[in-house]
Amino acid sequence: MIDKLIDKIIELQNPTCVGLDTDFNYLPDEMREGVTTFAEAAAKITEFNKHIIDKVCDIVPSVKVQIAYYEMYGPDGLKAFYDTVSYAREKGLIVIADCKRNDIGSTAGCYSKAYLGFTDLNGKKLTSYPADMLTVNGYLGSDGIKPFVEDIKNNDKAIFVLVKTSNPSSGEFQNLKLESGEYIYEHMGKLVSEWGKDTVGKYGYSDVGAVVGATHPAEAENLRKLLPSTFFLIPGYGAQGGNAEMLKVCFDKRGLGGVVNNSRGIICAYGNAAYKGLNYADAARAACVDMQKDLSGVIGVMGR
Amino acid sequence: MIDKLIDKIIELQNPTCVGLDTDFNYLPDEMREGVTTFAEAAAKITEFNKHIIDKVCDIVPSVKVQIAYYEMYGPDGLKAFYDTVSYAREKGLIVIADCKRNDIGSTAGCYSKAYLGFTDLNGKKLTSYPADMLTVNGYLGSDGIKPFVEDIKNNDKAIFVLVKTSNPSSGEFQNLKLESGEYIYEHMGKLVSEWGKDTVGKYGYSDVGAVVGATHPAEAENLRKLLPSTFFLIPGYGAQGGNAEMLKVCFDKRGLGGVVNNSRGIICAYGNAAYKGLNYADAARAACVDMQKDLSGVIGVMGR
Repeated sequence: MIDKLIDKIIELQNPTCVGLDTDFNYLPDEMREGVTTFAEAAAKITEFNKHIIDKVCDIVPSVKVQIAYYEMYGPDGLKAFYDTVSYAREKGLIVIADCKRNDIGSTAGCYSKAYLGFTDLNGKKLTSYPADMLTVNGYLGSDGIKPFVEDIKNNDKAIFVLVKTSNPSSGEFQNLKLESGEYIYEHMGKLVSEWGKDTVGKYGYSDVGAVVGATHPAEAENLRKLLPSTFFLIPGYGAQGGNAEMLKVCFDKRGLGGVVNNSRGIICAYGNAAYKGLNYADAARAACVDMQKDLSGVIGVMGR
Repeated sequence: MIDKLIDKIIELQNPTCVGLDTDFNYLPDEMREGVTTFAEAAAKITEFNKHIIDKVCDIVPSVKVQIAYYEMYGPDGLKAFYDTVSYAREKGLIVIADCKRNDIGSTAGCYSKAYLGFTDLNGKKLTSYPADMLTVNGYLGSDGIKPFVEDIKNNDKAIFVLVKTSNPSSGEFQNLKLESGEYIYEHMGKLVSEWGKDTVGKYGYSDVGAVVGATHPAEAENLRKLLPSTFFLIPGYGAQGGNAEMLKVCFDKRGLGGVVNNSRGIICAYGNAAYKGLNYADAARAACVDMQKDLSGVIGVMGR
């Protein structure tokens, strides 16, 4: 599955991932007016997402749908999550479900069924949420990751394991030094590399990727050297303070190695003076065009 | 909120938490027959859970609802999760949403709204899932935990942070030694204690608790000494191999300090030869009675 994402990145010369972290409050006033129930809010969020997907699907390879923003609208919110994931996939986008799931093996297996596999009902295999990729948290060790790796192999999917996250306090835990001399994030990175070693594709990257924040360039640079076969999902560009120059270190000599997420910078672009006069979907497209220029200007031609 | 849980544990002399990890395949054959859609499966799961809740609500203080088992049935599954959480609460049970959520601050805030707070829609405050407590994962550090702690304080709730999990491979990461000489799980425990220091209640325990597996008694004993103000959510009793003798170390001299989860051992008790002839709800009650005897036999009188 990482091969498919890289194919699309090369085709579009764009490693942008549009983050659909669609808080109801991000919607234009006229879409929010009169809404008082979760079902109504969920319908509006879906409408907003679909318009953005329509406008960006020919210029970006992927979207990342952050499930927290849907869970806060109850089961109706999950319907919006389902509809968004399904629609994005119909439109040819590679869909990353950003859920950061984690649990003991048997329970991790349920999460894996939900996002990367199938749920069996009396012998009938059903799809809960048709995502291509899922973010997970490795705090529980191998047996909490194995069910996901199985589904990756069986169903052509991918996961991204949290290694070095983009938030300001990530170092508080992830940058503690181990007795071995390694930092926690480095050790987690090595586990990720190990978990993915049987899934390396034609570009040399495995289907078990790592989340590496654009906001921590020193660690990102270190991880790129340490994990040559690990593809990065790079959050933190834009609103969180990361920029193209900072995340350049995540890419290899071919201009490959990561996909860069931007959420608010794209879906809330219509509120940005730079895109004044554009509706939210056109503003999102314009922001994607600008992000492509910004990234390719620093990364160069991808897939050379 | 931890005070309320401890009050109930003392009242019932029972620190049992019934784990509603209700896989559709755990249901009796006659309930599963003919079901082919997620909506039908979710309705049956809800029915199953409600019958169990009816039969155990007078003898146990709490239930833990493992959301992975609901997510795998799509948005309909989340409806079953909502209905289960709501019904358990109506019946006076303290409800732990076992979601192990984690993310950067703004996104953690969405999760917190979903399970511990309110979601605002045009000035109207709505409840997504009416849980009392939530499990979370601290890999992202303080700013990923703060939103939960805020909601705990504002809405009288509690969280349990993963410290030493019950799965076999938990040591692979959690038992790595830091340069400081501490193990990772010890350091996480200290962070948990710090995060909860302003929320210590009348029994001396804070509303920021820790998940500590019954399957790792040496670490549990160590954590009890290290974290005298941290209440434990103790998974791993029963099917995972933990027993009363092993988890005794989690309790203080007053017989307080933790709540012990059992999922399959209770909800699947009707398949156990010991409860032959009982329907699933009566078998669940019988298993709770036996578990109470087992635990109190080792812990002694609670709240002395």
